Amino acid sequence: MTRQLISEVGRDVLVRPSPFAMVWQGKGSPHEALAVPGVALGPGELLVEVELATICRSDVHTVLGQREGPAPVILGHEQVGRVVAVGEGAVTWTGTPIVAGMRVAWSVTVSCGNCDRCSRGLTQKCRTLARYGHDRVHRGWELSGGFASHVQVRAGSAVVLVGESMPARVAAPASCATATVAAALEAASAHAPLRGATVLVLGAGMSGLTATAMATDAGAHVIVSDPVAARRSAAFDFGAAAVADPGVGYLAVTGLGGVLAASAAAGAAEPLVVLETSGSPAAFRSALRAVGIGGIVVLVGSVSPGAEVTLDPEVLVRNALTVRGVHNYSGRNLQQAIDYLSDAWHSHPFADLVGETFPLALLDDALECAASGPHPRVGIDPRV
Amino acid sequence: MTRQLISEVGRDVLVRPSPFAMVWQGKGSPHEALAVPGVALGPGELLVEVELATICRSDVHTVLGQREGPAPVILGHEQVGRVVAVGEGAVTWTGTPIVAGMRVAWSVTVSCGNCDRCSRGLTQKCRTLARYGHDRVHRGWELSGGFASHVQVRAGSAVVLVGESMPARVAAPASCATATVAAALEAASAHAPLRGATVLVLGAGMSGLTATAMATDAGAHVIVSDPVAARRSAAFDFGAAAVADPGVGYLAVTGLGGVLAASAAAGAAEPLVVLETSGSPAAFRSALRAVGIGGIVVLVGSVSPGAEVTLDPEVLVRNALTVRGVHNYSGRNLQQAIDYLSDAWHSHPFADLVGETFPLALLDDALECAASGPHPRVGIDPRV
Repeated sequence: MTRQLISEVGRDVLVRPSPFAMVWQGKGSPHEALAVPGVALGPGELLVEVELATICRSDVHTVLGQREGPAPVILGHEQVGRVVAVGEGAVTWTGTPIVAGMRVAWSVTVSCGNCDRCSRGLTQKCRTLARYGHDRVHRGWELSGGFASHVQVRAGSAVVLVGESMPARVAAPASCATATVAAALEAASAHAPLRGATVLVLGAGMSGLTATAMATDAGAHVIVSDPVAARRSAAFDFGAAAVADPGVGYLAVTGLGGVLAASAAAGAAEPLVVLETSGSPAAFRSALRAVGIGGIVVLVGSVSPGAEVTLDPEVLVRNALTVRGVHNYSGRNLQQAIDYLSDAWHSHPFADLVGETFPLALLDDALECAASGPHPRVGIDPRV
Repeated sequence: MTRQLISEVGRDVLVRPSPFAMVWQGKGSPHEALAVPGVALGPGELLVEVELATICRSDVHTVLGQREGPAPVILGHEQVGRVVAVGEGAVTWTGTPIVAGMRVAWSVTVSCGNCDRCSRGLTQKCRTLARYGHDRVHRGWELSGGFASHVQVRAGSAVVLVGESMPARVAAPASCATATVAAALEAASAHAPLRGATVLVLGAGMSGLTATAMATDAGAHVIVSDPVAARRSAAFDFGAAAVADPGVGYLAVTGLGGVLAASAAAGAAEPLVVLETSGSPAAFRSALRAVGIGGIVVLVGSVSPGAEVTLDPEVLVRNALTVRGVHNYSGRNLQQAIDYLSDAWHSHPFADLVGETFPLALLDDALECAASGPHPRVGIDPRV
């Protein structure tokens, strides 16, 4: 369906036929389409036509009732699109004035830039935070999630230009998975340089494979652990130097301990950086066991509550360990993510991480496919 | 008893009457005196006459069988002394040539300076680490712990000059408690600046009170939590802005949560730095609950294994928390500790932290006193 910008008078923007979004009403209810006849764009805001959205695991967790969130809500926070209307003074994260026609990605968070948390760089935990795909839909910000024909991108979002040649399926996950991994690796590398380091990645889903590629391309020797054979195999395509099956026991040669031992025998250093992307309590325990003295365990996978882990704090002290939780990211990390993908999609099969693509109207089917299918991501194309 | 340096021929040093050390044989056995008739000083080594040693909690844990360690061993790793003989080329941590008569403190660890861990600044985890007061006594390094008339300080130790005016009871704990706290605050301040910050200190023993004073003097607003009223009272003497009793419940006004809330109401920021010095699992849980979004919990108290804690990694991720274990320190931190104490003992009652002082021959009695007495430290004076 071709939509056209009908008028843009001051703040009021009309597109025909009307933009629409899919509204999630709560567990067990199908999505309902919401038409949004007009949008009032404030200063610094954008109206963006969504080219492709991807379904993040957290969207699946939400619809399965595995994490709490408000409803009704427009889910979706990984997407790429094209600007159709621009509020006064809107600029990208690097300060470039934005004009209609630009292809963009934007942060999952909207931040004030002035509160104590924003001031210390933690924009993703802003005191007056809003989040695409997470906030209850409300008057004035109906187009607030990626599962829609258009998104109203608010001032305080980090907007990053996306090159025309990058496939949409590569760019869409940048605004959650890739940028979060960039933030995780930034935290890790502040602790221990990645170049020449041994990095252990636990979990070879979207975040794990992305981390594998980014750490490898930063000069690390990356070992990947995942119980699923197909994912271990994929890890090699993203640059893994070695893979391990945690299911066969810690000390088996193909188990994590065995692979670490074999890797050490081949001259690799002990891992000083461990990225835990799976959210599994067992993986967290493995991380604490595998990380070298003075190393860092970065947690990005534990985004659903309730998976409790027992640990002895003496291990953290005795081994001088750092455990760091990373949740979302700052604008800088989104820029890093897009910059990285611009080159890296040529050398690693990022495009293959998105499996089937569904029309927006079939969002419920797409979510079912995402929950059970083999691909880390499922696509939503609102233009078909 | 006055000892004199009788001869120093090349590497061989004789002191009469013979230096002696108290050897711990294992749990339940009294210490036995070991006379060490001569010492062969290698390049960079020192023979130091101990002026005062203090009993660290870890010495108490060892004799009570609460932590594993080799035996026989000369315990003691907090002490100050005076150089009586100098091996070729011995220098302080800042590079000053050492001569007999200098008053010195030295690191708990002996490091090679060349291995991968030393190269990345983690000298306290050197691949060929030796530790004063921790290693099995062996031929060639009999005078290896502070509970002795003399210590043979080996090359690879960080040696720091101690001013003549500083009381020995202030200087002795520097080489464990004060330097470890300096390392903990260094780790914390790399994450969040201390000036103007709210810092929460859990536990008001030797490390907790030292941390309170150091953080306060670095410009932080320090809140101290301890179940013992006398310790809470002492915390004020070391600069605490507020104290809490964790025993009365999190939500009580005088409980930790209540004090934090009152502190916030009075304009203090949420604590972005929490120093856990007690080793209590309950305190670790409180730390994770009290630390502000994006903050850091530094663990220094958990030095005995077995105190398991259950936590939900999602809290670390959601709140973007960092947990960092700090064990021992590098030479830089010992220098910071001595530099700090040089001024701070005038403004905070560091000298009162050491209670009774015992002759070295009564070490067993001193350890009993340390285990049950009210003071964070008990002194050992080998010269009486």
